[in-house]
Amino acid sequence: MDKIRIGIAGYGNLGKGTEKAIAQNEDMTLKAIFSRRKLTHSLYQPIDEISKWQNQIDVLILCGGSATDLPEQGPQLASQFNVVDSFDTHARIPEYYEQVNAAAAPAGKIAVISTGWDPGLFSIARVLSESVLTQGKSYTFWGRGVSQGHSDALRRVKGVKDARQYTVPSEAALQSVRNGENPELSTREKHTRECFVVLEDGADATRVEQEIVNMPHYFSDYDTKVLFITQQELDRDHADLPHGGFVLRSGQTGDNKQLIEFSLQLGSNPEFTSSVLAAYARAAHRLNQKGESGARTVFDIPIGLLSPKSAEELRRDSL
Amino acid sequence: MDKIRIGIAGYGNLGKGTEKAIAQNEDMTLKAIFSRRKLTHSLYQPIDEISKWQNQIDVLILCGGSATDLPEQGPQLASQFNVVDSFDTHARIPEYYEQVNAAAAPAGKIAVISTGWDPGLFSIARVLSESVLTQGKSYTFWGRGVSQGHSDALRRVKGVKDARQYTVPSEAALQSVRNGENPELSTREKHTRECFVVLEDGADATRVEQEIVNMPHYFSDYDTKVLFITQQELDRDHADLPHGGFVLRSGQTGDNKQLIEFSLQLGSNPEFTSSVLAAYARAAHRLNQKGESGARTVFDIPIGLLSPKSAEELRRDSL
Repeated sequence: MDKIRIGIAGYGNLGKGTEKAIAQNEDMTLKAIFSRRKLTHSLYQPIDEISKWQNQIDVLILCGGSATDLPEQGPQLASQFNVVDSFDTHARIPEYYEQVNAAAAPAGKIAVISTGWDPGLFSIARVLSESVLTQGKSYTFWGRGVSQGHSDALRRVKGVKDARQYTVPSEAALQSVRNGENPELSTREKHTRECFVVLEDGADATRVEQEIVNMPHYFSDYDTKVLFITQQELDRDHADLPHGGFVLRSGQTGDNKQLIEFSLQLGSNPEFTSSVLAAYARAAHRLNQKGESGARTVFDIPIGLLSPKSAEELRRDSL
Repeated sequence: MDKIRIGIAGYGNLGKGTEKAIAQNEDMTLKAIFSRRKLTHSLYQPIDEISKWQNQIDVLILCGGSATDLPEQGPQLASQFNVVDSFDTHARIPEYYEQVNAAAAPAGKIAVISTGWDPGLFSIARVLSESVLTQGKSYTFWGRGVSQGHSDALRRVKGVKDARQYTVPSEAALQSVRNGENPELSTREKHTRECFVVLEDGADATRVEQEIVNMPHYFSDYDTKVLFITQQELDRDHADLPHGGFVLRSGQTGDNKQLIEFSLQLGSNPEFTSSVLAAYARAAHRLNQKGESGARTVFDIPIGLLSPKSAEELRRDSL
């Protein structure tokens, strides 16, 4: 069988993770890595020339950010390639879907948007569990893991040289949900935040700490712990990007309590997201091979299409 | 919107659970309960007359057993109705799929086979997690819960009046998997078995216990605990049918460990299975409305079709 020819657009953490993910999928081959920056990588191609690659790439995996890259690249590239992305600005997903669909559908291309783990696998867990347990309560907890947005917020505080923020789910809250107590949980009760902060020379630690714990949106609604460490300690102990979380549905049928739980414990957030993107690239290729086109989310795609195995093999080995 | 008109074939634990599940789904209405036995239920209809109901039922949920009912009913009823079943004889699924497909496809009907939680939601968790983490090891643990097959086996031992068997996952084995140790686990290391047994008058407890723990296939490969109790204690403390379990995928990307876990903690095994059947009945109806026909498994059906919400609502609320 011919391998699925993959292109990567964007070569940050997500692009590098996707390169590793493609190498782990025997039915895929990486043809080119497109970037605005010139890369020394042997597969580097300038992103300006991407249109020339339409006949040499089956699926293009968009590894740019949701803030500025994808809103522009998504619709533009979906008219030329089957694409897969991890667009995660929740509030703008409906609008993004429409734009990408308007580009992909007339071009006869498939565009899988907003996949990864949240949105992505967590979204699947939410809809699956709510569809089965129609009477109940849903919970999503994140962590323990590094939040890049919150780490960036810390670094914008005057006097902070570098920082890393961990989102930590409350063990007590999780246990209460698992016990079927259906708690009403405030933001403060669900997660705590741990900040590892390197100060600039001469910065006032007390002022920095106060500024952090009182920062609206990011920290003021949480119990926030600030720990000051050296740059050396940060580099040594906090270089990884672990993450994860829990989706729970606590429901009732008849007189009985029922609990569905889906959880992730990720050594590398970007590498895991990339692995999900690779699986959905396979699905995108298959859907397009069947003549389908337009935008898709994880809700629209049968799970079997993610697997390298055939439907017959899945029925025999995995049901 | 017109409600989805549901019929139930078979009125044991699963049929009764399905009746409750339909009542929890506002877009469904139960039209008839078909049974071989005469029921006092107001919706009872003799199963011999089921063919007359083809125009009054959108989806028929088959609630018979996998040993004798479904192999006969599945292919026969799939030629007359959209059907959903929980056929769970793993080794015979490929053959059953072919038979049901051969009946459903030419009749223009959809037949969702082998759904529930295992096969069913656990199958989805296995394929999803193996497709994302291509390098790794998969584990399924069952329990703590009542195994009806093992309880039946206990009751066949001479001197046993009544009995209930619990399958118990090993906490140490689970923890080892969660720690990313990728253990090789023997049957004995994964689960233990707890048997609550009521003896007949004058039965020899020692002989009964030896016969149980050495019973091939059912108990000899496990560490089995036998506890003798009174019928009154059995009826009081062991009347429910709890179950559940864990599907784990422990994988590696680059230098990082990644763990996906899906688990169920069920107060009532049959009521939960019924709730899954109801959600797939909605999907079966929608697929048939779109003009599709033939047999389907959980691998073939997009998750969004299980939800009463529209695709737009799901993108807005659940991604």
